[in-house]
Parts: sequence; structure tokens; C-alpha cells
Amino acid sequence: MAQQQKACIVGIGETEYRPQGKITDRTEFQLAVQAIASAASNAGLPPGGIDGLVTFADPTINAAVLQQALGMERLRLSATVWGGRGGASCGALSLAATAVESGQARYVAVFRSLCQGQTRRYGRFYAERMHASLNAPFGLLSPVQHMALVMQRYRHEYGFEPEQMAEIALICRSNANRNPRAVKHDQQLTAEQYFGSRMIAEPFRLFDCCIETDGACAVIVTSAERARDLATEPVRILAAALGGGPDWNTGAMGAHNMPDYLTGNQRELAAELYGAAGIEPGDIDVVQFYDHFTGLTFITLEDFGFCARGEGANYVGEGHLRWPNGAMPMNTAGGSLSEAYVHGFNHVLEGVRQLRDESSSQVAGAELCLVTGGGGISPTSAAILGAW
Amino acid sequence: MAQQQKACIVGIGETEYRPQGKITDRTEFQLAVQAIASAASNAGLPPGGIDGLVTFADPTINAAVLQQALGMERLRLSATVWGGRGGASCGALSLAATAVESGQARYVAVFRSLCQGQTRRYGRFYAERMHASLNAPFGLLSPVQHMALVMQRYRHEYGFEPEQMAEIALICRSNANRNPRAVKHDQQLTAEQYFGSRMIAEPFRLFDCCIETDGACAVIVTSAERARDLATEPVRILAAALGGGPDWNTGAMGAHNMPDYLTGNQRELAAELYGAAGIEPGDIDVVQFYDHFTGLTFITLEDFGFCARGEGANYVGEGHLRWPNGAMPMNTAGGSLSEAYVHGFNHVLEGVRQLRDESSSQVAGAELCLVTGGGGISPTSAAILGAW
Repeated sequence: MAQQQKACIVGIGETEYRPQGKITDRTEFQLAVQAIASAASNAGLPPGGIDGLVTFADPTINAAVLQQALGMERLRLSATVWGGRGGASCGALSLAATAVESGQARYVAVFRSLCQGQTRRYGRFYAERMHASLNAPFGLLSPVQHMALVMQRYRHEYGFEPEQMAEIALICRSNANRNPRAVKHDQQLTAEQYFGSRMIAEPFRLFDCCIETDGACAVIVTSAERARDLATEPVRILAAALGGGPDWNTGAMGAHNMPDYLTGNQRELAAELYGAAGIEPGDIDVVQFYDHFTGLTFITLEDFGFCARGEGANYVGEGHLRWPNGAMPMNTAGGSLSEAYVHGFNHVLEGVRQLRDESSSQVAGAELCLVTGGGGISPTSAAILGAW
Repeated sequence: MAQQQKACIVGIGETEYRPQGKITDRTEFQLAVQAIASAASNAGLPPGGIDGLVTFADPTINAAVLQQALGMERLRLSATVWGGRGGASCGALSLAATAVESGQARYVAVFRSLCQGQTRRYGRFYAERMHASLNAPFGLLSPVQHMALVMQRYRHEYGFEPEQMAEIALICRSNANRNPRAVKHDQQLTAEQYFGSRMIAEPFRLFDCCIETDGACAVIVTSAERARDLATEPVRILAAALGGGPDWNTGAMGAHNMPDYLTGNQRELAAELYGAAGIEPGDIDVVQFYDHFTGLTFITLEDFGFCARGEGANYVGEGHLRWPNGAMPMNTAGGSLSEAYVHGFNHVLEGVRQLRDESSSQVAGAELCLVTGGGGISPTSAAILGAW
């Protein structure tokens, strides 16, 4: 493909992020309109010029109504990633990039609007959740319990220290404290507070769990050629892909007993992404990892080649993820643990900010950023973004 | 794009079609598996080799569970068209074609499984339907009522004779009588029966309305290059696109009072499709039109350039849509009116059959087929298929 056809992110926008239940004056629909209009404004594009809409994770919004609210002249792409929920963030980006690169659409808004106070709190148990009738009678109710079993098996096979998991929570909070958009911007977190917090599902304490919030965020994707005419320095989508492996779990997050109980499909995804982008893990400058629960980061680091299998906890313990002096600063806006839980799509925006030199925890000279969707839910997805 | 990259349909498959409520031994999920496996078999491809899944209209199915049921080694594309319902059939095909042509996925199954007896009958009123609170108090409840208002305005502006609308119902039924898969295969329909049937919402009588059925159908999409190695003669996707125009309605089907109250966006879509395929309306040999209600066909014929605005009813009345002697035989399997209502996706399969010389109402030497999604719901979509 010619370079001028390659997809770029040319604008980012978001609403304020608040704890769940604290946005009561606007619906998920209104938040989506606000975030998309803000992203278009950031790109220097009138919202009516958008001709594609992509989202994920069972939106409550009607695409045609959104088209009208934005004043879009044409709707040429209207799609959601099917399945994956938090695993789908970069899958949505991938659909937009493919559509732009093939000429199916020109300016695509990719977004997620999630007002948990108005719809549902994702941390809770819902009887209609996939396979609930098989799991719930045994007390396996909420996501934290499912993921705790994965971590328990990981601990059994490879071991890790509580301090290594705490490190993730403390890094995200520290980054959030520098980020005025973060829900936890004004709340410091110390190791004492972390270890003093109650156990939710062993090994996860309260501060190992992502927050539940209200808010929306969006990006605008177009071709490199069109990007040149817009207001803001574009960020290249070097590679974006969705992937589900053969034996991975089914959205029920009950894979802890399976032979490949880890976030398996991320490994194949990583190989394909690095190949498509023509880079290696060591080339990456900063990472935005899906962080629903702290410890899964160990596995993501291994899957994406930053260390060997079983070495993730040690890698974290050595301080590599810290800002500004670590080798691979992570979730520089605070992530799902401390900025906001928007099914991981806010991670894409922070990736863009890093490559535009606009982050509140800026990695000096960052040129390549890896963004991942949730590895615990199939299909998952990831993207490699590059500075212009 | 190189010819060998262009997307083709290489297999088709379906379950039996039955009146709604008559399939009770399998769920929508099981019907989907059956239809996709059948399409893969038709292509000579093991189901496990599929690496993409695309559907539309709010599936009840989980993509990752479907992946496992099919034994798919990898899931590289998992998407639904967002919105559009019956308008989205060719939008799903378009997503698959784009993914195949960009290399995002290799063998994509596109399908729709719809077991109205188990989920919901689309002809009914549902209080949670978009804008129901605005329309329902005035008696505007079910789709047939919404579309009847469009036809009333069309009659006011351009006029049509009842016999011209009856022609559509009779043609579809006659085609179904030759098609053993059709739900109405064994039920003849005469003009006397048509005019003796009760008025549902003027001008629509009972036989102007599509049937409500249970069943599933699927196609497999891959590149022309890979298609050469498979079992069945491929059918080319010359063009496939989704489109929503600026002032069109919002899924509420309440557009009868708007300046562009017709299926407006179909006109722009038609221009883009003909341009992309490099053909003109006169080149088309056979059409598969979305036929939720007979009279909308007048507008579709006009939008896609088979006659001038306001001339659709006369075009139909002149017998052009009849098989085998009409200039433009329509819905040769019986369509939504008499084969099955699978949100229009069965129309794609019949398009493929025509171009493989396999239809029960074969148009001799058919080389180009136009398939449309429902024009009454935004976004809509359409595709031009070509013989190998």
C-alpha cells in the first residue's frame, strides 16, 4: 500500500471522566456526540465531514441517530467489533484503519461511550452473562473472581510477589496524579494504603481493580494524504489487529483450567503486529496496556515480548514501567486503574498524546507506542502507533 | 487493487427455512453454525479455516463461542454492521470484502441467523423500539404502518395502481413455487387471493408484507487468488457498500414527512456502486431487492436507475420483473415475501446462485446481479455481484 493511503489518527477528544453515577445530566448518546465533536474539532474537521462510525462492546446508541446529531452528510461505514468488550478497543481502530485504507470511508470516528452509572456496572454479576448458569452456582460471579483464578494459576506456575502487583497500581496512580483528566487525579496512593486495602478476590486487593466511571472518548482516523491538510500533527497507525486464538476463552473468562490459560492469543497477535509494523519490542518507547486488574500486566509483558514467559513479575519489580526513568513507562495517563474505565479506549488517546508530545507524563522523544486491548476476553486486539 | 486481491464469494449455505415458531429443536446459534458449516462445505473449505465472522442486526450470538463451535484456529475479523437491520445485509458483505482485500482476514463467513419464533417477531410492536414513545401514542406501531405512510405519500405524489403492487407479490410467489427451499413453495397465490386478502395498513394488504420465518444463511468471502484453489466457481463482489444519506430516517422508519421521504440514500449508493463496478443499470441481468413490503420496490427501481423517479410502478406494471421473459427478473428465489425473511441475506445467496447458473428460476446467461438491503432503514447497503 502506498504511504499516503496508510491510516492515521488526526484528532482526539473526550468528555470529562467521573466516578460511575456522577454524570447524570447527559446520556451515553450525548457523551458520544460530545467526545466525537471534540475529536473532530481537535483535527480541525467539521463533525459533518465524518463519514464513518465505529465502536465496540454493545453500544446503547443508534448509528443513524448519531449520524444526524453530528450532521454527517454521509455514513459510509457503520460497524462495531463483535464481541471482545474491553478486548476490542484496538479492533475498532483496526476496522477504521482498514476502511480508510481501502477507500470505503474517509474520516472515521472511533469511540466508546460508557456511562456505568446509567447502564450497568461492569464489575458486578449479571445473571444473563455468558455461562453464568455454569459458573455462578460455584460462586464465580464477577470479573474479578474469574481473573483472580488466572492469577492464582500464574502464581502457582511462575510465582510473583505482592509488591510486584502493587507496583502496577502505584505507577498508574502516580501517573494519574499528574493528569488533570484522571478521576483519581487528586487521590494519592501509598504502598501502605494499597496493602491496607481489603482483599476482593485473592490475589486482587481493592486497588488491583480498575475503577468504574462515566465518560466517553473518541479519535478521528483518516489517510496520511488527507491528514496533511488538517490542523493537528497526525499519528500513524503502523499496525492494528484483532485476534482470537484457538483454545482461548469465550467471553466467560473461565479459562483458568485450560492448557493455554494465559492471554494466549496475544502472542500470535504480537508477532503479526510487530511484523506488520516492521519493528521489535525493544523499539517501543511507551506502552498503554489494558489494566482491568493489575497482575494481568505480567502476562501482557510476556506475550508482547518484553520479557520471557514467567518473567513478567520480575520485569515489573525491576521498575521498568515507571515514569520517567523506566525503560518502558506504562499507562502514562493512569489507565483503567486510575484515569477512567472506558473499556480501554482512553488508552488509545493517551498513546496519541505521547506521540504528539502532549502527555502529562511525557516520555521524552517517544516515537512508538504499543496499545493493547484486554487480553482476558476473546477476541482481543492491539495497535502500534507511530509519531508523524 | 490487483485483480487477485479482489473479494469473491466462494461458498453459500443455509438451513431449512420454516414459518416462525416452527424450528424448535435448534437455537439461532446452532442454526448459524449449521449455515456457516454448510457454506464452508460448499466452498470446499474446512470450517476451521475460516478466520473472520461478520453479521448484522443485533446478533444473539457470541463471536468467540461461535469461533470455538466452528473449530476456527484464528479469529482475525469479528464485526457487525452497526444499525441498519435489514438495510445492512450488503454492508456486512462490504465489511468482509474490505477485510479480505486489505489482508486483515483470509476466509470470512458472513451470515444472518434469525429464529423469530424464539427471539422476536419483527412485524410486531416493541415499546423499546427507537422513538416508540413519540410514534406509538398516535397509533404508529409496527413496521408495516410506518412503511404504509411512505407509500401513501408516494401514491399522492406519483400515483400507482393496486395491480402494480400486486405484481410484486405474485412474481415473488411464483418464483418461490419453483424453489423447494421457499417457505411458500407449496402455496400458490392468485390475483383473486391477493385482492381478497385483508388490508393490514393501507395500501398494504396481507400479501404485500414479508413473511416471518426461522432459519439462517451464510456465505464465505475470500480473495480471487485463494478462490482459484477452492471447490466451487467463485462469484465476484464487484462492488459492495453501505450508505446513509443526510436527511434520511433514523431506524424509526418515520421519514414519511421529510423532504426526502423516499429511500433517498439509495440513489447516492447506486451511483457509487455503478462507478466502482464500472457498469450501468442496463448491464444488470437480474436483481434481488429487499422486499419487506411490495411497493417499496417502485422506489428501489428508481433509485438504482432502472427507470425515472415516479416511473417505478409503471415499470413493474409492464412486466419487466417477471421470470423468465422480463427484462429484469426480481427475487428469483421468492425473496422476503415468499422464500424466507432472513433480513435480506438470503437475497445474497440467490444472487450467487444466479451467477453460478444454479437458480430454480435461472436467468439464462446471467453475468451481473444487483442485491439491495432494505432502503427504508438507515444505513442501507447494496452490492453488485459478477459471474466468474
